[in-house]
Amino acid sequence: MERAGEKQQSIEAFGWAARDSSGHLFPFVFSRRKTGEKEVRVKVLYCGICHSDLHCLKNEWHSSIYPLVPGHEIVGEVSEIGSKVSKFNLGDKVGVGCIVDSCRTCESCREDQENYCTKAVATYNGVHHDGTINYGGYSDHILVDERYVVKIPHSLPLAAAAPLLCAGISMYSPLKYFGLAGPGKHVGIVGLGGLGHIGVRFAKALGTKVTVVSSTAEKSKDALENLGADDFLVSTNEDQMQAAVGTMDGIIDTVSASHSIIPLIGLLKPNGKLVLLGATEKPFDLPALSLIMGRKTIAGSGIGGMKETQEMIDFAAEHGIKADIEIISMEYVNTAMDRLAKGDVRYRFVIDISNTLAATCS
Amino acid sequence: MERAGEKQQSIEAFGWAARDSSGHLFPFVFSRRKTGEKEVRVKVLYCGICHSDLHCLKNEWHSSIYPLVPGHEIVGEVSEIGSKVSKFNLGDKVGVGCIVDSCRTCESCREDQENYCTKAVATYNGVHHDGTINYGGYSDHILVDERYVVKIPHSLPLAAAAPLLCAGISMYSPLKYFGLAGPGKHVGIVGLGGLGHIGVRFAKALGTKVTVVSSTAEKSKDALENLGADDFLVSTNEDQMQAAVGTMDGIIDTVSASHSIIPLIGLLKPNGKLVLLGATEKPFDLPALSLIMGRKTIAGSGIGGMKETQEMIDFAAEHGIKADIEIISMEYVNTAMDRLAKGDVRYRFVIDISNTLAATCS
Repeated sequence: MERAGEKQQSIEAFGWAARDSSGHLFPFVFSRRKTGEKEVRVKVLYCGICHSDLHCLKNEWHSSIYPLVPGHEIVGEVSEIGSKVSKFNLGDKVGVGCIVDSCRTCESCREDQENYCTKAVATYNGVHHDGTINYGGYSDHILVDERYVVKIPHSLPLAAAAPLLCAGISMYSPLKYFGLAGPGKHVGIVGLGGLGHIGVRFAKALGTKVTVVSSTAEKSKDALENLGADDFLVSTNEDQMQAAVGTMDGIIDTVSASHSIIPLIGLLKPNGKLVLLGATEKPFDLPALSLIMGRKTIAGSGIGGMKETQEMIDFAAEHGIKADIEIISMEYVNTAMDRLAKGDVRYRFVIDISNTLAATCS
Repeated sequence: MERAGEKQQSIEAFGWAARDSSGHLFPFVFSRRKTGEKEVRVKVLYCGICHSDLHCLKNEWHSSIYPLVPGHEIVGEVSEIGSKVSKFNLGDKVGVGCIVDSCRTCESCREDQENYCTKAVATYNGVHHDGTINYGGYSDHILVDERYVVKIPHSLPLAAAAPLLCAGISMYSPLKYFGLAGPGKHVGIVGLGGLGHIGVRFAKALGTKVTVVSSTAEKSKDALENLGADDFLVSTNEDQMQAAVGTMDGIIDTVSASHSIIPLIGLLKPNGKLVLLGATEKPFDLPALSLIMGRKTIAGSGIGGMKETQEMIDFAAEHGIKADIEIISMEYVNTAMDRLAKGDVRYRFVIDISNTLAATCS
C-alpha cells in the first residue's frame, strides 16, 4: 500500500533512520516531494545531534513515528529554489532548525513567534500538510518553505554553526525575552551541556554576568577559562549554594533529567525568573510560597521564532559565537548516541553529512 | 519575668487575642510603646478578617507566637503623631496593611517594594526591632511608622475600605505588575472569596475582560450581575474548561486550598501568566512541558509596596471600588472565624472595632 501523499514525493533522498524504539540508526532510502513555489531545497552539509534526537529515536516522548530520520540543527547550501522564493539564491549557506511550518495566521505567527503556534510543524516526526511525515537532517537534502530557513553569514564556520539552530536559539531567546541580557544582570545557567555552553557565550556577549550551576565540579575549569563564565557553583555543595542565595536576576535551567527546582528558586533575587528548557519526565514539586516570597517567576521557553533565529545567528556571527563541537562521520552516529546518553561529549556532536553520508549509501 | 522590651511599652492597649492554637479569641489587655518621632498612633475604627488571620490563630503555618492579636486590614484615625511625622495630621483617616516595617535599604525597599524586603515586619506576629512581638488590628489602637501608613480618601466608606489593605492590594498589584490590566486583556480570577471579588472589581475598573473560575456554580449570578464579571467558568465542568483553553492572558489564582494548576495553565494563551496568591500547604505538581509549550509563566505575588498601596486606595476611591462586607461586633469574632472556615461569608467580615470593642473590656 502506498503511504499518504507518496505520489507527490518524487525526489529520491537518502539518510539514516531508526526503524523502532531501539533507536538504532540504519541507512535509509526515501523520497521527498518536488520543490514548491515558496520552497528551498537545501543540500545538507552538517547536522548537529540534539538530545531531543535521542529521546525521539527511543520513543521516550511516546510520539515517535518510524522510520524516523532525526536532525534539526541543519546547515547546508541552497540547491534549488521555487519560482516564488524571494529570500534565497542558489548556493546560499542556510540553516534549518526545529520547525519547518506553522499556521501563519494565529497571534503567535503574526508576532513572529511561530515556535509557539499550536500548529507548528516539527522538522522531523512532524506532519506536513499533505499528510506525510517529515524527515530531518540526517539526510542528503531537505525541502523547506523559505519562511523557516535562515541565512548563515559568511564569517560563521558552518559545522560549529549547526548547533545554533536549536541549542543556540533555545538559550538566546529566553535571555532576551525575560530581560536577562545586559550589563548589571546576573544569570545562572544550570547544566553545562550542548545548550548551557552556548548559553554562557551568548550571555557573556550580551554583557550579562554568568554563573554556571552544575553537579559536575570537573567542568569548572572549562566553564571559567574556555567559556568565560564569571563563577561556577557545584549544585551539590550546600555551602556554595547557600552563599549564592538571592543573588541572581534569572536562571536558565537546561537540565532535562529529574531534579529539584526549589534550591534554584532560592538563588533568585526578588522578581527573579527561573526559565525551564528541559522537558523533564516527572513533574516538579512547586511550593507556592517559594514564588510568593519575592514575586518570583517560573517560566518555560522553547527555541524561538524565525525572525529571532536570524537575529541570533547574525549576533553569533558578529560576536564570533559558536558551539564547541566534535565532528563525526555518519557511520559513527550510533556510537555518538551511546556517548551522548552518558553525557560523554563536549559539547555537541555534529555529523559531517556531505563528506560522509554518501559513502554509506548501499 | 518581663518580656523583652516590655519596659518601653508604656501605653495600655486592649484587644482580643488567641492564647493557643485552638485559635479561640479572648479579651486581652496589653501595652504598646510610646510614640516614636516618625510614628503615627492610629485609633482603630474597623478591621477586616483575612483568611491569614485564621491560619495564624490556629498556627497552621507553624510560626504563631501567643498571645496573638490578629488583624492587618486596619482603617482608623490618627490620634497622635511623633515629632518628625510629615505625612499625617491628627484626625486623618488612614489605613494599615500587612507590614509595619522593613529594612529600608535593600533593593526592594529602595524600589518601593517593601513587601518583598526579606526583613519586612508583619503587622502582627512580626518582631519589632526592639524585640517585642507586634499585635494587630483587633485592638483599640496601633502604632506604626508613617512610611507604612496610607491615607484613606474621604469618598471611601471606611468599613468597606478595610479589606483593600490586604485583599485589595493583593489583587491590584499583580494585575498591574504582570501586565494584565487594560482593554484587550483577558484575565481569569480563580476563587471568588475575599480576594477574588475585589479582584473582579479592580480588573473591570482597569478595563480588563474578566472570567471568574470557581468550583461553586451558585456564585455565577453574583459574579456576573453584582461584581460585573464578563464570564464564569465552573472549574469542575470539563466542557466549559475545555472551551476556554488558550483564551486568557493571565490568571490570578486566589485559592489556598489544595488544587491542581495544570488545567489553569491550559487556559492561558502563549506567553500567558498564572499568578499564585495562595500559600497552599502541599506543593503543586508542575510539568515543565506545560510551560515550555507556549512560553507560559507561573509567578507568585504577595500584597504590594506602600507606594502602590496608596495608588490602589486612590484608584479605588476614584472608581468607587469597595469590598462587599458583613460588619460584625467584636464579640461575634469567634463565630465569624467558624463561618470563614466554612466559606460562609460574602465576601469579607469587618469588625466594627470602635463601636464594639470597648464594651467587651472587662
